[in-house]
Amino acid sequence: MSVNLSVPNPAELFPIPGVRIGVTEAGIRKANRKDLTVVLIDEGASVSGVFTQNRFCAAPVQICREHLATGQGIRAMLINTGNANAGTGEDGRARAIRTCQALAAQLNIEAAQVLPFSTGVIMETLPIERIEAGLPAALADAKTDNWLRASEAIMTTDTVAKAFGVQVQIGGVTVSITGIGKGAGMIRPNMATMLGFIATDASVSQDVMKQLALELAEGSFNRVTVDGDTSTNDSFVVIASNQASHAPITSLDSAAGQALKQAMLGVAKQLAQAIVRDGEGATKFIAIQVEGGQTQAECRQVAYAIAHSPLVKTAFFASDPNLGRILAAVGYAGIADLDQTGIDLYLDDVHVALKGGRNPNYREEDGQRVMKQAEIAVRVVLGRGTASDTVWTCDLSHDYVTINADYRS
Amino acid sequence: MSVNLSVPNPAELFPIPGVRIGVTEAGIRKANRKDLTVVLIDEGASVSGVFTQNRFCAAPVQICREHLATGQGIRAMLINTGNANAGTGEDGRARAIRTCQALAAQLNIEAAQVLPFSTGVIMETLPIERIEAGLPAALADAKTDNWLRASEAIMTTDTVAKAFGVQVQIGGVTVSITGIGKGAGMIRPNMATMLGFIATDASVSQDVMKQLALELAEGSFNRVTVDGDTSTNDSFVVIASNQASHAPITSLDSAAGQALKQAMLGVAKQLAQAIVRDGEGATKFIAIQVEGGQTQAECRQVAYAIAHSPLVKTAFFASDPNLGRILAAVGYAGIADLDQTGIDLYLDDVHVALKGGRNPNYREEDGQRVMKQAEIAVRVVLGRGTASDTVWTCDLSHDYVTINADYRS
Repeated sequence: MSVNLSVPNPAELFPIPGVRIGVTEAGIRKANRKDLTVVLIDEGASVSGVFTQNRFCAAPVQICREHLATGQGIRAMLINTGNANAGTGEDGRARAIRTCQALAAQLNIEAAQVLPFSTGVIMETLPIERIEAGLPAALADAKTDNWLRASEAIMTTDTVAKAFGVQVQIGGVTVSITGIGKGAGMIRPNMATMLGFIATDASVSQDVMKQLALELAEGSFNRVTVDGDTSTNDSFVVIASNQASHAPITSLDSAAGQALKQAMLGVAKQLAQAIVRDGEGATKFIAIQVEGGQTQAECRQVAYAIAHSPLVKTAFFASDPNLGRILAAVGYAGIADLDQTGIDLYLDDVHVALKGGRNPNYREEDGQRVMKQAEIAVRVVLGRGTASDTVWTCDLSHDYVTINADYRS
Repeated sequence: MSVNLSVPNPAELFPIPGVRIGVTEAGIRKANRKDLTVVLIDEGASVSGVFTQNRFCAAPVQICREHLATGQGIRAMLINTGNANAGTGEDGRARAIRTCQALAAQLNIEAAQVLPFSTGVIMETLPIERIEAGLPAALADAKTDNWLRASEAIMTTDTVAKAFGVQVQIGGVTVSITGIGKGAGMIRPNMATMLGFIATDASVSQDVMKQLALELAEGSFNRVTVDGDTSTNDSFVVIASNQASHAPITSLDSAAGQALKQAMLGVAKQLAQAIVRDGEGATKFIAIQVEGGQTQAECRQVAYAIAHSPLVKTAFFASDPNLGRILAAVGYAGIADLDQTGIDLYLDDVHVALKGGRNPNYREEDGQRVMKQAEIAVRVVLGRGTASDTVWTCDLSHDYVTINADYRS
């Protein structure tokens, strides 16, 4: 089940010149399932990534960071599902490196020019023989219009593939942006999501690319949560193949930089929100906007406290306007000097709480009406400043428990 | 359902000389339910309390703090279920004060000598007329051996009443300690629990009483969590009626102070753990011990990250040794310089992870065996110091969702 999430529209998954994708069934955990993806990037691209802040980060995340730091141009990505290669110690690192070496040998590049990504069960040994055996078929499949298949090949507990694209004019030239993502549980990205990849043929300097990756993650994946569990494998990578003919973007503050960033941010937000819409067991999509804070950080802190409260999430599942639970979460969010008498709460257009108490004009049937919707906007006004921030989340249903009690079986 | 939790044993619920309890059915939210309790305390007692750190603290919590701060001897407590009187603004404060005035008038004491407690639904108006109407029956019921009835009268979503007692020798005199508690959901006390009350006839100076309340909360209620939601109404009060004939305790460091504190801590721990054992939907009781930290605070932070992870909690519910989820929670607990290669993980006696990777000797069937138990000890060794701490929690089951999706209906 997902909330207002359609399968990807092939018409908006634009091929990105300079980026080819191949997919195969390598039998990594289960048979007859697309589980291995290669992304081949022409020489001269700008590539940057952000990764999980989980200190128990997976071996492939460690290797990605190291390979990006070498400064050698990234030429390929290797993505497997069925196994996260996390909690696997030195042996896991060695295996991640060996898969990079295997792909590099096929492409006649350096292993450090390959970024590895793994997603699936934690603390299991990565079956590298199956990955190596699958590489020739994946490489034979490589083409520029393979985004849809790739979005399917990186799914784990996802019920719907996630891929979005857009075209934008940069310096009089039409450039394309296409992105794919995956994730449904263990979702509380801290720098990035489970797996998100966005490519463009726009021309962007490598320095700008680093800043762009951070800002895109900040405006999208760093604002969603399903269950508050920050994954060991979160990875978000942006690729500019630099094959469009406009003048290279050397600053995000330029008109061209702003235009590209906004277009890419739109795709990143769609991917991030798609992960919430497909959150494990989700029946509702909830945007939590917190306004009137002293800082954006405290607004986000309050929004996440609400978004992570099992009591708030089960009330949404039940369509029960038990809205005191939201006030309780605001209260324990960790703002030490918060004054409850300054707080207002709205559910869509319904003014629920006024100055920390029940709004005398609030009628339960109005709250009930909004709670029954599949998409709900929660708005909290802290009344202590002008900052604001927004977080997107879903409800907590029986299916979440079922899915996570059965995941490995 | 609760985990290894029996109904209170009347034989260990010792009457406390100087403390009488009366219970009645006031129809506050539902009919035919014990929902109003008065605790009458003889003059000369030492009373102290600790209360929720939730900034959205309920009106009765605010009034308790104010009344304790006046320094007038506390002579009575008034406890209602069915309504939390939280998120009710100025009107809620006025109503809490009026109930204190009503009881004070009956007892010929000051309103500031009454402590009010409310638990139930948030953001509903407290029906003070029903409370006032119920007071005569509650007062008529007052007697020293009413602890069992009181433990039943303060239940909300609790399935089992919670009351424990013990006797201890202080200065050659036998003193009694009896405590009651309630709570099953919205449980992540931050200073205290939903409602916990412990009384003794021991003789303790008022100064020592304040320190005692803090230390007891710290060693018991501040180490449990069900769902991570810190309530608006958490209150923990300790009463010493000072009627035992031993020399008054003027320091917790004295032999008598230590003896009393350890005995009372035993009761406090039983109450706190009973709340977890009766956690909404709980099928397992889990002790999470984190060792080898640099500070006790970071050990508790890691323990709570594990205890709050929906993925860890659903894995326990499923008896699935999907133990990488525990490592992931350790990783995102917020220790910025944590080195994953120093971490070991044990499940009871089973050594699961060694130096951040899977222990080569770990066999899935050993993990499976422990996961099937109703009581499980998780032990994480951080390998960076000598500090340790323990948190108690339960699993996350379908019944948790059912209970919280149906709570108000």
